[in-house]
Amino acid sequence: MTDVKGDRSLPPHKQADPDLFVHVTKRNDEGVWITGAKAHQTGCLNSHWLIVMPTMRLGEGDEDYAIVGAIPVEAEGITYIYGRQSCDTRAMEGGDIDTGNNEYGGQEAMVIFDDVFIPWDRVFMHGEYEYAAMLVERFTCYHRRSYVCKSGVGDVLIGAAATVAEYNGADKASHIKDKLTEMTHLNETIYSTGIAASYQSHELKSGAWICDDMIANVCKHHVTKMPYEIGRLAQDLAGGLVVTLPSQKDFESPEIGGLLEKYLKGRADIPTENRMRILRLIENMTMGRNAVGYLTESMHGAGSPQAQRIQIARASQMDFRKALAKELAGIEETDREEILETFTDYFARVFTTAEPKAKA
Amino acid sequence: MTDVKGDRSLPPHKQADPDLFVHVTKRNDEGVWITGAKAHQTGCLNSHWLIVMPTMRLGEGDEDYAIVGAIPVEAEGITYIYGRQSCDTRAMEGGDIDTGNNEYGGQEAMVIFDDVFIPWDRVFMHGEYEYAAMLVERFTCYHRRSYVCKSGVGDVLIGAAATVAEYNGADKASHIKDKLTEMTHLNETIYSTGIAASYQSHELKSGAWICDDMIANVCKHHVTKMPYEIGRLAQDLAGGLVVTLPSQKDFESPEIGGLLEKYLKGRADIPTENRMRILRLIENMTMGRNAVGYLTESMHGAGSPQAQRIQIARASQMDFRKALAKELAGIEETDREEILETFTDYFARVFTTAEPKAKA
Amino acid sequence: MTDVKGDRSLPPHKQADPDLFVHVTKRNDEGVWITGAKAHQTGCLNSHWLIVMPTMRLGEGDEDYAIVGAIPVEAEGITYIYGRQSCDTRAMEGGDIDTGNNEYGGQEAMVIFDDVFIPWDRVFMHGEYEYAAMLVERFTCYHRRSYVCKSGVGDVLIGAAATVAEYNGADKASHIKDKLTEMTHLNETIYSTGIAASYQSHELKSGAWICDDMIANVCKHHVTKMPYEIGRLAQDLAGGLVVTLPSQKDFESPEIGGLLEKYLKGRADIPTENRMRILRLIENMTMGRNAVGYLTESMHGAGSPQAQRIQIARASQMDFRKALAKELAGIEETDREEILETFTDYFARVFTTAEPKAKA
Amino acid sequence: MTDVKGDRSLPPHKQADPDLFVHVTKRNDEGVWITGAKAHQTGCLNSHWLIVMPTMRLGEGDEDYAIVGAIPVEAEGITYIYGRQSCDTRAMEGGDIDTGNNEYGGQEAMVIFDDVFIPWDRVFMHGEYEYAAMLVERFTCYHRRSYVCKSGVGDVLIGAAATVAEYNGADKASHIKDKLTEMTHLNETIYSTGIAASYQSHELKSGAWICDDMIANVCKHHVTKMPYEIGRLAQDLAGGLVVTLPSQKDFESPEIGGLLEKYLKGRADIPTENRMRILRLIENMTMGRNAVGYLTESMHGAGSPQAQRIQIARASQMDFRKALAKELAGIEETDREEILETFTDYFARVFTTAEPKAKA
Repeated sequence: MTDVKGDRSLPPHKQADPDLFVHVTKRNDEGVWITGAKAHQTGCLNSHWLIVMPTMRLGEGDEDYAIVGAIPVEAEGITYIYGRQSCDTRAMEGGDIDTGNNEYGGQEAMVIFDDVFIPWDRVFMHGEYEYAAMLVERFTCYHRRSYVCKSGVGDVLIGAAATVAEYNGADKASHIKDKLTEMTHLNETIYSTGIAASYQSHELKSGAWICDDMIANVCKHHVTKMPYEIGRLAQDLAGGLVVTLPSQKDFESPEIGGLLEKYLKGRADIPTENRMRILRLIENMTMGRNAVGYLTESMHGAGSPQAQRIQIARASQMDFRKALAKELAGIEETDREEILETFTDYFARVFTTAEPKAKA
Repeated sequence: MTDVKGDRSLPPHKQADPDLFVHVTKRNDEGVWITGAKAHQTGCLNSHWLIVMPTMRLGEGDEDYAIVGAIPVEAEGITYIYGRQSCDTRAMEGGDIDTGNNEYGGQEAMVIFDDVFIPWDRVFMHGEYEYAAMLVERFTCYHRRSYVCKSGVGDVLIGAAATVAEYNGADKASHIKDKLTEMTHLNETIYSTGIAASYQSHELKSGAWICDDMIANVCKHHVTKMPYEIGRLAQDLAGGLVVTLPSQKDFESPEIGGLLEKYLKGRADIPTENRMRILRLIENMTMGRNAVGYLTESMHGAGSPQAQRIQIARASQMDFRKALAKELAGIEETDREEILETFTDYFARVFTTAEPKAKA
Repeated sequence: MTDVKGDRSLPPHKQADPDLFVHVTKRNDEGVWITGAKAHQTGCLNSHWLIVMPTMRLGEGDEDYAIVGAIPVEAEGITYIYGRQSCDTRAMEGGDIDTGNNEYGGQEAMVIFDDVFIPWDRVFMHGEYEYAAMLVERFTCYHRRSYVCKSGVGDVLIGAAATVAEYNGADKASHIKDKLTEMTHLNETIYSTGIAASYQSHELKSGAWICDDMIANVCKHHVTKMPYEIGRLAQDLAGGLVVTLPSQKDFESPEIGGLLEKYLKGRADIPTENRMRILRLIENMTMGRNAVGYLTESMHGAGSPQAQRIQIARASQMDFRKALAKELAGIEETDREEILETFTDYFARVFTTAEPKAKA
Repeated sequence: MTDVKGDRSLPPHKQADPDLFVHVTKRNDEGVWITGAKAHQTGCLNSHWLIVMPTMRLGEGDEDYAIVGAIPVEAEGITYIYGRQSCDTRAMEGGDIDTGNNEYGGQEAMVIFDDVFIPWDRVFMHGEYEYAAMLVERFTCYHRRSYVCKSGVGDVLIGAAATVAEYNGADKASHIKDKLTEMTHLNETIYSTGIAASYQSHELKSGAWICDDMIANVCKHHVTKMPYEIGRLAQDLAGGLVVTLPSQKDFESPEIGGLLEKYLKGRADIPTENRMRILRLIENMTMGRNAVGYLTESMHGAGSPQAQRIQIARASQMDFRKALAKELAGIEETDREEILETFTDYFARVFTTAEPKAKA
């Protein structure tokens, strides 16, 4: 979805190079052709279809940029350029420890379209620039709520921090236990705001259900901060060794492996290798390949922090809240009563959450 | 519920004065008699019944303190001592502005029991000290989730802050808008964690439903912090006048009222009185009578912050999380697989939230 | 200093009422006459002289508002209107406990000037509107650094919190000790940024020394947040009783005084009255009269938070920092080297802090 | 300095392997021999001398561990094992962009001592275990204050964030400017607490000067958090590309280099390569090799966060603060007056900071 965007102070049709946002270059009876690039699509290489969409509000002059369509990943004219991740080449070193998480990782690639064809029956928007903003808002409403997935990643990191504290013999210290509690409190905040966004979902005219826009944005906005704090606390519990541990090859070396085995032992009953493995997992999640997904993607995926703040402000129905305050302060103003009687949007959902069940 | 507690480092039966926790002083065929005091019961003076309960985990020797029973508020032997609130006497000054919120307020009173009788049919626990902890935990699970009510109070304070910014002519400044967004983000976090705790409720053997213990505690724990930050931001938007405004009597004084009318004007089209009223409402909610409920009661009601941290830690199923981390780190340990296959408690609810609907 | 300001989106000369900022109304050979009002001058009633100053940047058209002059507090034409503070009337109730701090408090008053005369030899600025901004910046540089005083107030509140924890028998709990440490960490941050602003002071052409603008603003900016968090933590340690405690009159009542004496006892060896006194002091500093000074004045005195952010941004010498980053990233750009060789302003002070001593 | 420590719940002489803390294995007329390991010494490979020291409080039974001595880095019996850093192998790939900072980096190595000899004239402590705690505290007092160096690293990262915002065409947005201000506010807090710790230094009996223990710990404690938040904000301003950027080799590839040049252009007047370089610098400092030093070493170097909290608590002179509170609350207690008249330690320095200058 994310176009490469060029100069962010300019709209698509004012960019020095028209291709900096994906756009239609020609069209005929059979379909359209598009050119441009999507900056860094997570998981695109293991998908079957790509759906291109505008990435933001469009205005007059941006008609060619108002294009939504589905394309098979192997369509002619697409070039994928694989992105680098922190510590990416460790996967090619041959061991299974320094990678941190030897089973799972993600990948991002730049997707470049050079006059790629989309037949009309797979074109879902074509020129209706005035709906681009609404489309993006609805898409991100789903997408931001889906970032609740990071609470699952958080479970693993909290578990890793608890494990390393135990391996270090430090798990009984009150400050250690308190930090694990703080990590849990943050992690479950992400989880529960995500769940609440779904619970408070509502039906659109089309019959599709959409989750609550306010809460979905609140959820994602926490995701832009809390994983960083959880990651910081995990490094606190791990100790400095998490970023200075010698390599697996040194551990396996006949010459110095024994020294590392001896000196990197924590609690006597825990194999040194286990301690190494858990430290490498924490490195992987806070600085390495999976930090890309757990931290930076949590920041920017489905919209950067400011995008959520804009949506939270839009959904906040400040006039309703002002009327509440004026009522209690004894301020008589035109429309105050009228506003208070009209529940719409977010407040309608807040005050009627019980109804769907009552009806059922 | 909250006993006066005396020395918090000692259990009930070790206190210098046995009455510092409510306890049974005698019993016969008809019922029991209790003595002691509840420290500050919100709203007790406008209730019909009191239910006394233990306030914390009890142990051996505390048998007489394991008492739950219902008592009419006007029962013989009860003394109520009304507590003071910040700015309480403003309500007796005769005006309707300096009170801040002239319609609503709360009250707390100490409730002292001097051999108050409870007939057996209104005694629900008697001596079973080993269930006191579970009773308190279940009660606070409901009670902590109910603190979502503070998001409604927050709506009013956010509305008041937005109103005063407008009256000051400052509502277009980007930092003002951003602070209102931050207040909303915090407020809706309280709301949505509360909703999620209910959504994830589950049925007990008795047939009663109870909300999710982890999320209810996460909700209440946010309530111990976020209202303070929302209050701080409201004072930021209000300006210093919120705590230095002259009295209503000065405004109404024939001698100096006109000067205040002239000089405390904000935007030319807003009556000075309206500006005063909204400032007094903010004072009321951040320092005055309703700050008692919005701030300090948010801190301590249904358990002080540390009580929630203890429950969050208990509900966190750290062994399950450790097993997740070990799995990904490639650490083989006894029971790892077994733990991963057994979803219980919180994780059982997390991974099966869809089921109740599927069954229905 | 703070004018009443009216509509904050408009400059002084565009206000609906010209008097909403203090300004010169006439002038002759002997001096000038001023009219207007200062909103809430702390401590003015126990001062000998008032110095009026512009409160912000002035522009063309604001010439009459560019006035600085000294006036005796009892000058003809001045009216003082005393502001209300939270819990102000408790001082008139006759007791010495409910006031919280029976010895010390502050006061603010609105100061209204109605054609007040200032002779020329006490006029220090007259019409030079282009220097108003610099004057305000220099004044606030001193003033913001002086807000280090709140760390002294913080010492008292931390001491009160530690005392009440001890009286409650809760001072050995690890979370209590940790919260006292957090309060100290915050409080000493205020102290040390204040000290650093003075250490890094420098001589102006006039021979006067001024403290470091960046650090003075960093200090004051912490003061707009940290006292609120220290206050929140003090309420955490105090327990809910801090806002629900019955009145001194009830304690002294022959009828119920004994009940309160008995039931509000904490640790057996501490007089109940002492516990009451320390709770009232915490109420006084977090919600009552001294909360006005410790919290809200910390927010707005010497400029509201956004005013500091503007100064921090101005002093941040971002071009110098950009050049540092470009150097390390290997980016060749015009002027990069030049910028790096020129230490001015803040960075000049940072890199030459040792010199004053070396010279001495 | 940091021993490998083994099981952190046990003192040195109770470890399963006696070598988990450096200790004396034999001694004769010429000197002592030591065995053990220091976990990860920053910069040891480019030093001339190593000084070994105990790493924490020692007790009875730990006599052999109370050893301080100086050793040339090339002494017989020392083995160095180089630690891995995030993205370490990028330095061996041949390019100068993907490394992020191609000129500077650090290194850590484990230092293993196998019966290494130290002659008596280079032994500074030998068996005096009761002074180990004081030695560590004094050493860390200097060392923690020295962590002010991270504010220089912060200058670079803030500059990099400002540069990338400009390259992206986003530098005029108010939220971007505000985040740069926040980063500066945090960074200068580190700087100014460091400066204040030195300003408030005092002379020991030996004639050596030591910086203020309280403030040095406050400084270092901020260093364990603020760089993480500065790093998070830098990633916010950079955009997601900071962790998904294709490799330098792809940029230089004749086949796809042109596509990257075209599509990764930000502002039209900025070379794409410059944008890449600044993004790689931010990656380097927040996830790569220099994140090891800017983040994790900031956390654990000179003592992990809890170590500072313990020192802050020790230096806080809570009895003095309690006496202040009791004085104002009107509580009469033995010793209150006496305590208030005795300024010692931190408060002595706070209230006499002007004296050294006055004397000079």
